[in-house]
Amino acid sequence: MTTRSGSGAVGLDVGGTKVLAVAIGDDGTPRAELKRPVTKSRDGLLDALAEAATEVAEAAGVALGAVGVGMPGLVDAEGVVRVAPNLRDIEGVNVRDGLSVRLGGGAVTVDNDVTCAAAGEWAVGAATGLDDVVLVALGTGIGGGLIVGGRLARGANGFGGEVGHVVVDPSGPWCPCGRRGCWERYASGSGLGRLGREAAQAGRLDQAVAAAGGDAESVRGEHVTAAARAGDPEATAVLEEFAWWLSLGLAGLANVLDPSRIVIGGGLVADADLWIGPARTSFDELVVGSGQRPRIPLIPAALGERAGAVGAAHIAAQKKF
Amino acid sequence: MTTRSGSGAVGLDVGGTKVLAVAIGDDGTPRAELKRPVTKSRDGLLDALAEAATEVAEAAGVALGAVGVGMPGLVDAEGVVRVAPNLRDIEGVNVRDGLSVRLGGGAVTVDNDVTCAAAGEWAVGAATGLDDVVLVALGTGIGGGLIVGGRLARGANGFGGEVGHVVVDPSGPWCPCGRRGCWERYASGSGLGRLGREAAQAGRLDQAVAAAGGDAESVRGEHVTAAARAGDPEATAVLEEFAWWLSLGLAGLANVLDPSRIVIGGGLVADADLWIGPARTSFDELVVGSGQRPRIPLIPAALGERAGAVGAAHIAAQKKF
Repeated sequence: MTTRSGSGAVGLDVGGTKVLAVAIGDDGTPRAELKRPVTKSRDGLLDALAEAATEVAEAAGVALGAVGVGMPGLVDAEGVVRVAPNLRDIEGVNVRDGLSVRLGGGAVTVDNDVTCAAAGEWAVGAATGLDDVVLVALGTGIGGGLIVGGRLARGANGFGGEVGHVVVDPSGPWCPCGRRGCWERYASGSGLGRLGREAAQAGRLDQAVAAAGGDAESVRGEHVTAAARAGDPEATAVLEEFAWWLSLGLAGLANVLDPSRIVIGGGLVADADLWIGPARTSFDELVVGSGQRPRIPLIPAALGERAGAVGAAHIAAQKKF
Repeated sequence: MTTRSGSGAVGLDVGGTKVLAVAIGDDGTPRAELKRPVTKSRDGLLDALAEAATEVAEAAGVALGAVGVGMPGLVDAEGVVRVAPNLRDIEGVNVRDGLSVRLGGGAVTVDNDVTCAAAGEWAVGAATGLDDVVLVALGTGIGGGLIVGGRLARGANGFGGEVGHVVVDPSGPWCPCGRRGCWERYASGSGLGRLGREAAQAGRLDQAVAAAGGDAESVRGEHVTAAARAGDPEATAVLEEFAWWLSLGLAGLANVLDPSRIVIGGGLVADADLWIGPARTSFDELVVGSGQRPRIPLIPAALGERAGAVGAAHIAAQKKF
């Protein structure tokens, strides 16, 4: 048996294939983290979450305190996952109660994963000390998390921050959600791939096509970024197009919410050096009243893939939220 | 000299040509109101505001308490009007301090006019008792006011709620703001007129063209609504197009903010019966996860043209904000 010092909140960030668990101490700093694969069945997932929470507290040498969970999709205020395209078996399941039972009745909070990431960046990342912040997470799609007036904003039912399906071009390409021209058709990882395939089909982007095995239809976002890194101006042009669409949606959010900072996270931010410059330039042009208002900086996230788990732990510990 | 009972907060809603003043009692209910013309010069406007505030308190039989002002445009947290296209002389002026001096040092708050309208509808109108509400005001343009997590959300600098210049179609018509496809090019009074002129130029909308003096270029929103009221199916079709664009922008706001209600105010709401049905239908289709979330009702505002002044008075009185 290990010696435990105090109790600690645990945060779990659930993805489509793995869960990342973080334990924080009473002072809010991370003490331990681990990753576990998740099965997609309802019970398999809940069991894996309970196990990961228990193990990470053990690893941190703390008694397991409150547990926060970040889930992809729409999570309601009761802890029920309403819509989760990558975890269909968990739709309709009360994750809060299901996990609490497995943890012997411990306190569990459940939020959208990007809401948790915003909480993490706000607590100890790129948004500390600010009262109005928008976080967008650029991955396969685009998620959003909002700090409004010094508090985490979840909306009336916990469904706030669904920025990826804001329509930015009603005559644009169809989205799997059934609508046309959703922002994430342009400014996400899958959006970048789509922009790349369009350019490739128009006969540009030879380097990326070659990297994709010679087939324009197989071009993905990573082929575009790799070609741009290798100096291909056609790939750079696609990234500039991506940056423009990114800035278009960010400007809309800025017009509505007037944040003092926008934090950009998610997997794509690893290549931010390739697109954040042009995104900043066009963002400044697209925000209403720019020139008569303080500039709103676009800042890469600080916590990387840990943001969601750290934020979930902070929410659970009620350090600030 | 009149007998005064208690003190009362006063709200002033400043438009391009007039100010509407309301005095509320200690219990928050309106006791008196009046309208005064405003000149557009800096001193003329501030003098007119001071006079209107003094007179409406007098009319209400209360001692003048705190004064709240709603101004069109971007108003910062210090009470300075940064951008006001219809009141250029007031740009850069600290309305809070300028009015306070004229009132002998009394407390003055200054906010965007639609933020004030949201406060009014929230305090005593169509949004009472709700913690997450979006108000949009459909006038010449589109303004927005936000209640987030049970508080009025102004953003980091007071510039939140500028929903009219969210771009909904980047290849759409130019906006006077210098961007293309702003929401208010479609779903405002001027947007409805533009949609009407497009239809007229395409040879439709004969009734509205006749009402506009026979010139397709002269068609305005009111010609379209009048023709629709007279039973013209072509005018009804234009209003359905208007309703679709309205719902597109509202769905974007709903995706981001997850309100429990959207309140629609502004001058156009007088004709809501002509378009709110189709707007509700397409809104429900455009909101992400509809079917798995509570329906978000679109509700006409309750306070009419008084909303801004009543809200400004409530903000000044700190009844709730």
